[in-house]
Amino acid sequence: MQEKVVIIGGGTAGPKTAAKLRRERPDIKIDLYTQEDIISYSACGLPYFIENLIQNPETLIIRTPEDFKKQDIDIHLKQKCLKVNTKEQTVLIEDLISKNIYEVSYNILVIATGAVPVMPNIAGIDLKNIFTLRTIQDGINIKNKMQGAKKAVLLGGGYISIELLEAFVHNNLQVTLIEKNSQILKMFDEDFAQNITDYILGRNPGQVNILTNEEVVAFSGNDKNEVEKVITSSGKEIETDFVILGTGVKPNTDFLSGTDIKLSVNNSIKVDKTLRTSKHDIYAAGDCTDNFNLVTNRYMWMPLGSTANKEGRCAAINIAGGHCLFEGILNSTITKYFDYTISIIGINYKEALELGFQPEFAIVTKRDKAGYMPNTGTVTLKLIADKNTHTILGIQGIGEGDVNQRINTVIPAIIERTKLETFMNLDLPYSPPYSPAIDPVLNAAQIVYQKING
Amino acid sequence: MQEKVVIIGGGTAGPKTAAKLRRERPDIKIDLYTQEDIISYSACGLPYFIENLIQNPETLIIRTPEDFKKQDIDIHLKQKCLKVNTKEQTVLIEDLISKNIYEVSYNILVIATGAVPVMPNIAGIDLKNIFTLRTIQDGINIKNKMQGAKKAVLLGGGYISIELLEAFVHNNLQVTLIEKNSQILKMFDEDFAQNITDYILGRNPGQVNILTNEEVVAFSGNDKNEVEKVITSSGKEIETDFVILGTGVKPNTDFLSGTDIKLSVNNSIKVDKTLRTSKHDIYAAGDCTDNFNLVTNRYMWMPLGSTANKEGRCAAINIAGGHCLFEGILNSTITKYFDYTISIIGINYKEALELGFQPEFAIVTKRDKAGYMPNTGTVTLKLIADKNTHTILGIQGIGEGDVNQRINTVIPAIIERTKLETFMNLDLPYSPPYSPAIDPVLNAAQIVYQKING
Repeated sequence: MQEKVVIIGGGTAGPKTAAKLRRERPDIKIDLYTQEDIISYSACGLPYFIENLIQNPETLIIRTPEDFKKQDIDIHLKQKCLKVNTKEQTVLIEDLISKNIYEVSYNILVIATGAVPVMPNIAGIDLKNIFTLRTIQDGINIKNKMQGAKKAVLLGGGYISIELLEAFVHNNLQVTLIEKNSQILKMFDEDFAQNITDYILGRNPGQVNILTNEEVVAFSGNDKNEVEKVITSSGKEIETDFVILGTGVKPNTDFLSGTDIKLSVNNSIKVDKTLRTSKHDIYAAGDCTDNFNLVTNRYMWMPLGSTANKEGRCAAINIAGGHCLFEGILNSTITKYFDYTISIIGINYKEALELGFQPEFAIVTKRDKAGYMPNTGTVTLKLIADKNTHTILGIQGIGEGDVNQRINTVIPAIIERTKLETFMNLDLPYSPPYSPAIDPVLNAAQIVYQKING
Repeated sequence: MQEKVVIIGGGTAGPKTAAKLRRERPDIKIDLYTQEDIISYSACGLPYFIENLIQNPETLIIRTPEDFKKQDIDIHLKQKCLKVNTKEQTVLIEDLISKNIYEVSYNILVIATGAVPVMPNIAGIDLKNIFTLRTIQDGINIKNKMQGAKKAVLLGGGYISIELLEAFVHNNLQVTLIEKNSQILKMFDEDFAQNITDYILGRNPGQVNILTNEEVVAFSGNDKNEVEKVITSSGKEIETDFVILGTGVKPNTDFLSGTDIKLSVNNSIKVDKTLRTSKHDIYAAGDCTDNFNLVTNRYMWMPLGSTANKEGRCAAINIAGGHCLFEGILNSTITKYFDYTISIIGINYKEALELGFQPEFAIVTKRDKAGYMPNTGTVTLKLIADKNTHTILGIQGIGEGDVNQRINTVIPAIIERTKLETFMNLDLPYSPPYSPAIDPVLNAAQIVYQKING
């Protein structure tokens, strides 16, 4: 009998698993069920679509159901998974159009249901023009609202808010960002978060307002039930044309409650390095799984498109009978605010202290090319290392210069526990248009090493 | 008695050693002797000065003798070292102005005499307007000649020739590059050298001519003894206004012949990882030393400004009583031809075969950002790994996209012998303006791994 693989979820990991599995195994039957009406798209590109750097939202679609059909993969749109019966090897599916409910059996199940926005419990949250951003339709709705709007409010100071801030500022809106913590971008140390805040405020003076330590207590609307004002804990009333909720996401795993599939941090699905769940015949991949952090050696939950891609690929190889280990992550993230790069890898100084490391750090601000070259940019790096082991725990990078190149150099060194004394003499290629003779990241390592070595 | 450190050579490593040593040890007497009339400059910046991206050659100077004087370091210009007497701990110096010859004693000697151009044995080589490029004065002479010239000939197809080719093309000259081997940039595999050649020829059609397998047999001059024609082995006669000899360099160590300082590859100075020579009280750093290649585990000679900087710093730390190991190099180089990056790390496929590895490779051509973003560039990577150990032996990268970022990611992985199966799932930070969801360098690793694993 033909082996039957059922995949639940159509964002990134699901379609990736399907496509890779088909390349590895032409013989298996592959069916993918998704509650959405579109699959295999880059959600990470949505802020740039809203900004208008991308005109056609269809360019964000990587593969269509028709593309999959050519590969003999059946995509079932608007079909929502309600329940998994691990004993019977079946899933219960609801057809969101006809409302029919039916059972599908599997030999291997892949859960790739991703993450869903957390809706904060705020009075007036059901008013019109309060958006979350996850699907292409969300992106289209926000873009339509933005065009013609004058004011926007962003709730939450994470990456998506920074990216949407760029989009709205670029489109000449007046924007207020409201963050309940004492800093935006809470993965960064306070000093770097402050630098980023200063850059954002300084780039378009008067156009952006960032409120920290401020909670939204209510939204008030007009007679058309459209949001009109955001009311905060300190009594501020902020007029706005629309609101974006960037208040976080959670694993889309509620439908697994009551099953014997083991859950992990934040109710993400526990997977081993082969992406197998606690059930031998069930894999999981992407934003719904837990993640092993290679710096802290602890499990965490970190939903990211790049991880979803790699996990989907890896799960497919293992399902196909091959061997692929997804060893873990470094919590690596990057974004930009116009020409200013914002990136962090590993853990920050505060986390390092909390986790019981003996951290030391260096901050360097250097030009990204030889100083005499035209068009140099500045990079500011904060490199954090452990005094006991001389290994790198993390790096934060910001600036209008080439930050990414420096950040990437550190990544294999973190997972390999490369000692600072080796790292600081790394043979990075040098030429005046690409770096100073001693690259800023090596310079940072030299300084941390000197601080540690006294 | 005050300890006396004498440094010979004023390019990169010598001044770096002096400056770092002073920071570490305020008590030592430091004297630096150089045959040139200028010290501490970036020779790597000269092509961009000639191109006119940099107007003032003084911006290439990192520190002046006056800067050093403030640090209590005595710089002795136009003083050439003729001989080292290792038994008496003295060096014999000639004052190039007064022609006086005198002895200087040392407790610690640092040899940092760099490299000198190899002058090919060609009839007519003494004609006017035949240049080598090493010093700032060379750069000024070439720039003066270029302005007003219409035609140039470059001998040798190495990095400096590519950089000067850009400079001359940018200034609207007609340029012929003559290379005796079958390809330019001999460190690259033939396929990549051909891609680079095609790019150069295609960028300014008709303005550049690249002749390979062609030797220059003579230069002929006019009645003012100025070079006028370059005559090749196949009988070509190429008219030109001036000629650049990019035919290689050698360690500047002739003055050490007859001493008991051990020499190494190409008569470079043998140093250990502390930058100490075979004599306990003599260190060497920079282009005059040999280099340990961390891929091949063999000694080689690879003169590079970045290495000179690191070696000078490391030697100073050790002389000061600290501890610094310079473990070796990866033969890492990078340059550009206008917006096109050219870079190689480690060894190429042909070398890997010759050295007895079991190499496998993948070539990928990918966009450097998410495909739907504006202003993406293309990167082409050739990743070479060893079938037996699954470790990376080298990478070649070319293209108008961000090559440097990918190349740098591989470097710590090479020295740590990271396995492909780990490397290909590396948590590189992803965002559409910075990379595709699976970075091209990870994609290359996936493909090599699949080829190896069948």
